[in-house]
Amino acid sequence: MPEAWSLHPQLDADTAPVGDLALSRVVAMNVADYPWLILVPRIPGAVEIADLEAADAARLMEEIALASRGLREVTGCDKLNVAAIGNVVPQLHVHIVARRKTDPFWPKPVFGQPARAGEAAEFLGFIGDIRHRLKMAG
Amino acid sequence: MPEAWSLHPQLDADTAPVGDLALSRVVAMNVADYPWLILVPRIPGAVEIADLEAADAARLMEEIALASRGLREVTGCDKLNVAAIGNVVPQLHVHIVARRKTDPFWPKPVFGQPARAGEAAEFLGFIGDIRHRLKMAG
Repeated sequence: MPEAWSLHPQLDADTAPVGDLALSRVVAMNVADYPWLILVPRIPGAVEIADLEAADAARLMEEIALASRGLREVTGCDKLNVAAIGNVVPQLHVHIVARRKTDPFWPKPVFGQPARAGEAAEFLGFIGDIRHRLKMAG
Repeated sequence: MPEAWSLHPQLDADTAPVGDLALSRVVAMNVADYPWLILVPRIPGAVEIADLEAADAARLMEEIALASRGLREVTGCDKLNVAAIGNVVPQLHVHIVARRKTDPFWPKPVFGQPARAGEAAEFLGFIGDIRHRLKMAG
């Protein structure tokens, strides 16, 4: 029986669900100053992009581009920041962060920085907008 | 006449050349504590992964995986950190960093952190090893 995939408990605790693309679960972090999506390929045991099968890597890249365009359209951001780090949570996950030149950390990277949560209603609105843009059921 | 590509002067100043893959120029930063490659797709005007043509994005992902495996093999690192940020240097470039659980910043991300340069001879040896591993002329 193939190993089952499930979202890492730390990612589950830190995010809200957005929806599923063909390969990746999309979740969102509630960050007030720079809207933040995370793509988590639903591949049991995946840790490094370097170890994905070629077809999965290609699909992940398509989904990074798709989610990035959606995030940019929804937020009107100036720059996208994309990263696969995983030093603390080993389950492969890709951060996609919408940066504005007016955000408090610009132009510094925000990975590993403390993040200020926004209002719940605004975060739910953001998730709804992303779902709509990525044609996901909500 | 198509616009010519050249490496952004800031990337050129901060790195040493390693070689060219089919799409990307590979350069290396001299960082003592976490060996660091940068892939720069030779596409004039490219800024965001989200705006690449599908074939270029697919090729970039293949080269990220290839360079990551090479970097891991050469360094014996514990974790690969991959990021496209570009808040300061807009030319699209992808960082691939070899992290060890014993490095001074672990498990924090190193993007945007000051980096300590290593010995020149060691850095040249590293570049030679990467060239050999990626089958590049040196």
